Amino acid sequence: MDIINTFSRERLLELRGRLEDLNVDGFIVPHSDEYQNEFLPSRSERLAWLTSFDGSAGIAVITADKAAIFVDGRYTLQVQEQVDASLYSYEPLVDRSVTEWIQINLGHGMRLAYDSWLHSANEVNLLEIACSKVGTILVSLNINPIDEIWKDQPLPPKMPIIPHELCYTGLKSSLKCKEIALKIKRNNNDAVVLTKPESIAWLLNVRGNDVPFTPLPLSFAILHSDEKVDWFVYSEKISKELISHIGKQVSLHSPEELGSALDKLGKAGANVQVCADTTSSWIYQRLSMSGANIYEFIDPVVLPKAIKNQTELSGSRAAHVRDGVAIVKFLTWLADIMPKQKITEISAAQKLAEFRSKGDLFRGLSFETISGSGPNGAIVHYRVTQDTVRHLRAGEFYLFDSGGQYLDGTTDVTRTIALGNPSHEMRDRYTRVLKGHIALAKARFPAGTTGAQIDSLARQFLWQLGLDYDHGTGHGVGSYLGVHEGPQRISKAGTKQALEPGMIISNEPGYYKQGSYGIRIENLLAVVVDEGVEEAKVETYGFETLTLVPIDLSCLELPLLTLQERDWINDYHAKVKSEIGPLLDNKARDWLSYSTREIES
Amino acid sequence: MDIINTFSRERLLELRGRLEDLNVDGFIVPHSDEYQNEFLPSRSERLAWLTSFDGSAGIAVITADKAAIFVDGRYTLQVQEQVDASLYSYEPLVDRSVTEWIQINLGHGMRLAYDSWLHSANEVNLLEIACSKVGTILVSLNINPIDEIWKDQPLPPKMPIIPHELCYTGLKSSLKCKEIALKIKRNNNDAVVLTKPESIAWLLNVRGNDVPFTPLPLSFAILHSDEKVDWFVYSEKISKELISHIGKQVSLHSPEELGSALDKLGKAGANVQVCADTTSSWIYQRLSMSGANIYEFIDPVVLPKAIKNQTELSGSRAAHVRDGVAIVKFLTWLADIMPKQKITEISAAQKLAEFRSKGDLFRGLSFETISGSGPNGAIVHYRVTQDTVRHLRAGEFYLFDSGGQYLDGTTDVTRTIALGNPSHEMRDRYTRVLKGHIALAKARFPAGTTGAQIDSLARQFLWQLGLDYDHGTGHGVGSYLGVHEGPQRISKAGTKQALEPGMIISNEPGYYKQGSYGIRIENLLAVVVDEGVEEAKVETYGFETLTLVPIDLSCLELPLLTLQERDWINDYHAKVKSEIGPLLDNKARDWLSYSTREIES
Repeated sequence: MDIINTFSRERLLELRGRLEDLNVDGFIVPHSDEYQNEFLPSRSERLAWLTSFDGSAGIAVITADKAAIFVDGRYTLQVQEQVDASLYSYEPLVDRSVTEWIQINLGHGMRLAYDSWLHSANEVNLLEIACSKVGTILVSLNINPIDEIWKDQPLPPKMPIIPHELCYTGLKSSLKCKEIALKIKRNNNDAVVLTKPESIAWLLNVRGNDVPFTPLPLSFAILHSDEKVDWFVYSEKISKELISHIGKQVSLHSPEELGSALDKLGKAGANVQVCADTTSSWIYQRLSMSGANIYEFIDPVVLPKAIKNQTELSGSRAAHVRDGVAIVKFLTWLADIMPKQKITEISAAQKLAEFRSKGDLFRGLSFETISGSGPNGAIVHYRVTQDTVRHLRAGEFYLFDSGGQYLDGTTDVTRTIALGNPSHEMRDRYTRVLKGHIALAKARFPAGTTGAQIDSLARQFLWQLGLDYDHGTGHGVGSYLGVHEGPQRISKAGTKQALEPGMIISNEPGYYKQGSYGIRIENLLAVVVDEGVEEAKVETYGFETLTLVPIDLSCLELPLLTLQERDWINDYHAKVKSEIGPLLDNKARDWLSYSTREIES
Repeated sequence: MDIINTFSRERLLELRGRLEDLNVDGFIVPHSDEYQNEFLPSRSERLAWLTSFDGSAGIAVITADKAAIFVDGRYTLQVQEQVDASLYSYEPLVDRSVTEWIQINLGHGMRLAYDSWLHSANEVNLLEIACSKVGTILVSLNINPIDEIWKDQPLPPKMPIIPHELCYTGLKSSLKCKEIALKIKRNNNDAVVLTKPESIAWLLNVRGNDVPFTPLPLSFAILHSDEKVDWFVYSEKISKELISHIGKQVSLHSPEELGSALDKLGKAGANVQVCADTTSSWIYQRLSMSGANIYEFIDPVVLPKAIKNQTELSGSRAAHVRDGVAIVKFLTWLADIMPKQKITEISAAQKLAEFRSKGDLFRGLSFETISGSGPNGAIVHYRVTQDTVRHLRAGEFYLFDSGGQYLDGTTDVTRTIALGNPSHEMRDRYTRVLKGHIALAKARFPAGTTGAQIDSLARQFLWQLGLDYDHGTGHGVGSYLGVHEGPQRISKAGTKQALEPGMIISNEPGYYKQGSYGIRIENLLAVVVDEGVEEAKVETYGFETLTLVPIDLSCLELPLLTLQERDWINDYHAKVKSEIGPLLDNKARDWLSYSTREIES
């Protein structure tokens, strides 16, 4: 702790010195990179380097005599443990909190700087408005003062880019380019600047290894309305095999050439499509100054990427079988070893990763495993550390939320299991969470329905007791890509995006009793077209559950379940048993048989 | 028909003549009045007078050689029957359809006129944008050319205004003015122009009789931040009793003085709050020209009016007892007479109105009764006429949707009853509609939940078969005021307004099989604070069902109902029986006893 704080103090002092040299009064340090990624390469962990706060979201504002760090509700405790209160004030990160802080703490004629690569165009708009209200000048920097003082800052990642084969993608890159180019033409535009690495990976059918958990190559691209692509990527990442994979419509350039390519679009008076929510302000400004006509549209790849084709769906089903095998082996091991040996949240997570890593086509975890027992299970985004780790103990719930990246699909599954006999209250809450999960899994709904419209189906049984959970019910999942992707989601917050056949989305209601236990039951679902009755005039969709892992029957309060819910559980378990069982050894198969036993209906 | 068409042709010709005199090329005729009312005084039925179309929503655009009438899906058939196709083209009324028509059919330099009293400020903004795109000049008229040619146009209604007593309102007008004035001050404004007659009726605790179905006095008002009110209303409507009722903070003016009062605000450089969605463009323009600083806010009365106080809720409960008595008497009469005498949709509706009119404090119907049997029940907004009327026949469903205006509350109830034995399919659909109704009635939800979030609870059982209904699930209801009021509603369309304790809202899922039958089951609900379990940290709301009318058990498919749903039905019927039973004669009491018999659970 002390050492970290000494570093923090030195670094903050040094940064303030640089700001003085740069003739600015303040600087913004977001948890972000040039691509607005969810997971950052280590080089971009500037917020953690400066403040010691290593959560997944946060932002700091530094002035000559003040420093504030903004984190959301998940990180209220963590920020206090990691960040020196004598250096930084802790601020809640909610809408407008940074801009409000600026308006209170900065004044007329002051100069507030930001790194234009690390903020989206729309974020900068909001900063501009806030600064203009108090007469503060917002200064766009093309260098980052932290990079200047961070002596051993890692270099940009340059991991090899790997072709992602047609047997996994189901659609040639040239056809994807054709489809997106057509969209651009329909918008009367000449080109789109693609800045989300996921979008480029999907479009070009390539994957990489530049950031943790998501198989991304970091790069930028311009797709022209003639279907040609300019791809800005370090040459060290490119193999001959890759060049023949991507085909002739893709021209390679170094990342440094992006600026001049944008200038070229401007000089030609091109109509250029940009997503102001996800594109860095640097790119937006450069385009604007070059004279291009900028038209703001959502990244055109986001929706087609979310709607999986038959190859991707088959791949996901196959990946979920292997993922299910790994988890069943893990649960068999756990049931076997618990009476004999002390197991910790860390050793359990490690063992789970070990089983997963033995699966075919496995390439890594899709996010850091959440492994929480007893009260730690009640921390929604719990990340086990040596300071917090607990032994798995009889009578408690153990919650694990984890996922794998397989060449043919991305998985994300949560199970909550009873270590011994849960109390009546625990069984009641578990059963209500499961009832919500089942209501969503069984839901059918007309074409055009959004995730916001069906979110309450998953919450209704908890709501009956005045209970709820403080997170969304479902997020989109990529195909060997990000474990969190849009535009679909199931949550209270409105989203205009309807659920479309082929989308993969999680179903993860939960319940968390602070200081006691946490429950979450998560399966991935694929949206499918469903048959209605003969007189039905509305096209109807439903869900296919992809995840294949037993649900702990010892946690159930049976009288709370309707006949239909019991049937769903029995049907689901029969499917898990028939798909996973044949791939197990005798011991695990016996465990699975017992764990998927029929309940009375 | 022929006579109507002759009128229409003459009137259209005469209108075109007037437009020439006024030096304009086109004119817009909306179904609207100066108050953007739902129900219009007969004087304002200009669209019906001109075109013969008498639906509740529509708009016509007339040029020298073209005439178009725009109606929504409800009126597709009706417009064809009522409006001469040789004079008018029929157009679908959807978002932007009128503005699109203008852009196609009008051109550069043409002059399109509108009556600035009949369009809200925001509507005129949209018209301005459409016209500017094609170089057409939008001309604001302060007179209406239809009024000039409509020889026997009724005069503005000047019915007496009646004090609405504290025993019904629960809150003195002076306190309401204080509350709203405080809101205005918080917005840094000096005054608000109130243009919704419902808002003024609520604020001043007065009612009237200027339009059908809603006990409204038509008037305008300005509420100042010092809690004083300028009220613009015909002196003929004012009695001495009323003057003493409204108190000294209200100054009376004739409606003609509104303009100069707006000018006065402007001259004083006042900050004036206006609702651009509901305030006529005439008022907005006058304020703007006078130099007032206009700030757009939602009408500040809408939300407090929607949140009923304890007096209003008690009144509503009492009104629902009387309303229930009338309907039970009607249903007893119907069961008795059906085997003996032919009953039509019209005679049934008349009989129902007759029973209702005998109730204490009854002042009229709250909307035109929908009375549809067999296939007519499948027409959602069916209005029985001599052309469409059917006899009530055995084996069919009979759907009636009706409501009453009582001094202590407004009611709105729909029941669907079986005339003899319904088919298996009819029972299945009826039971699914009822299951949705019950799911909503029993719902509990955290504070902050909107109607859009719980709408799917009412639809889920129909969705399971690929079925749905094409209308909202619930609308707000006033307290001896409009039977449709905002801001709350339960519908697929998003609304940001959370449901708040005290709001009254309808619960009316339905199902309509075109050409066969219609089903709707509607009760009014009050939002109430509900108790959660001990560990609950979220404030939880639920519903109290206000309507007291049996649900036809002979329509049920019992196996589809869960134990909890059967309990709900039995509990509801026990309440109906205990509240209504003692107020009936023997015959009706026997009918009620049988109709509220317990079903096995």
